[in-house]
Amino acid sequence: MAKRKTMQNDPCPVARSLDLVGDRWSMLLVRDAFDGIRRFSDFQRNLGVARNILSDRLGALVEEGIFAVQPASDGTSYQEYVLTPKGEDLFPVVVALRQWGERQLFGKHDPHSLLIEAATGKPVAAMLPRDHAGHVLKPAHAQVKKTTKK
Amino acid sequence: MAKRKTMQNDPCPVARSLDLVGDRWSMLLVRDAFDGIRRFSDFQRNLGVARNILSDRLGALVEEGIFAVQPASDGTSYQEYVLTPKGEDLFPVVVALRQWGERQLFGKHDPHSLLIEAATGKPVAAMLPRDHAGHVLKPAHAQVKKTTKK
Repeated sequence: MAKRKTMQNDPCPVARSLDLVGDRWSMLLVRDAFDGIRRFSDFQRNLGVARNILSDRLGALVEEGIFAVQPASDGTSYQEYVLTPKGEDLFPVVVALRQWGERQLFGKHDPHSLLIEAATGKPVAAMLPRDHAGHVLKPAHAQVKKTTKK
Repeated sequence: MAKRKTMQNDPCPVARSLDLVGDRWSMLLVRDAFDGIRRFSDFQRNLGVARNILSDRLGALVEEGIFAVQPASDGTSYQEYVLTPKGEDLFPVVVALRQWGERQLFGKHDPHSLLIEAATGKPVAAMLPRDHAGHVLKPAHAQVKKTTKK
């Protein structure tokens, strides 16, 4: 992945984030981790991705501190890949991707998996940026204030 | 991009979304569009991306209905690429990526661009998934309910 980490000094947080998780496999691995998957072979089975790509992406995510490697929880010699706090903090990104997909990429009666609150079984409410009065913030009402580079 | 659109029938909305916008250039183009960029040459200058990659990604985003092509607003013969409502609806994804980057990829005194409310100049508040009681929903308190495929 020659294109990786070319924007690590970019003053735009979106660019820096995409440098680390801006490819589908990385984000699918994070999604799978939220679903409880921890082992190389289980990621591979679930994603149907080639071993070399999986190995490359998991390695990069470990290197970036998004996943950590730990001994298997069942005492076997397997390694497990678990999200660090930095990786867990990607939850809003996964939720935002999910909710856009739900709104835009499924027909009304097209079945899809559902993110629910474990405690109540209710679907997780739409997560949208809000202004300080609590109203949904439209892109037209937001702007980016550039920072001069150091 | 041989890997594109292999998950368009996936019952997981995260996977379907990543199929369309799961690469850094696509999301950077969407980000730039929110910043007001509309022309091929301006995207190219801002991103420093090769023409063929830019052309490929913009073409795919138009095909997917995320961008639309329209005549230049100034009456010249240029074409402009503008977000459709489907593309505008990616705003929460860009905000989530930005905010993760702000929290995790910048040092305390590391300058970065800031997303502000145009009306007040205040930074946009953290956007986080919430439960029905209004508390921040941690990944451990959410779960995915799988849907059987049609």
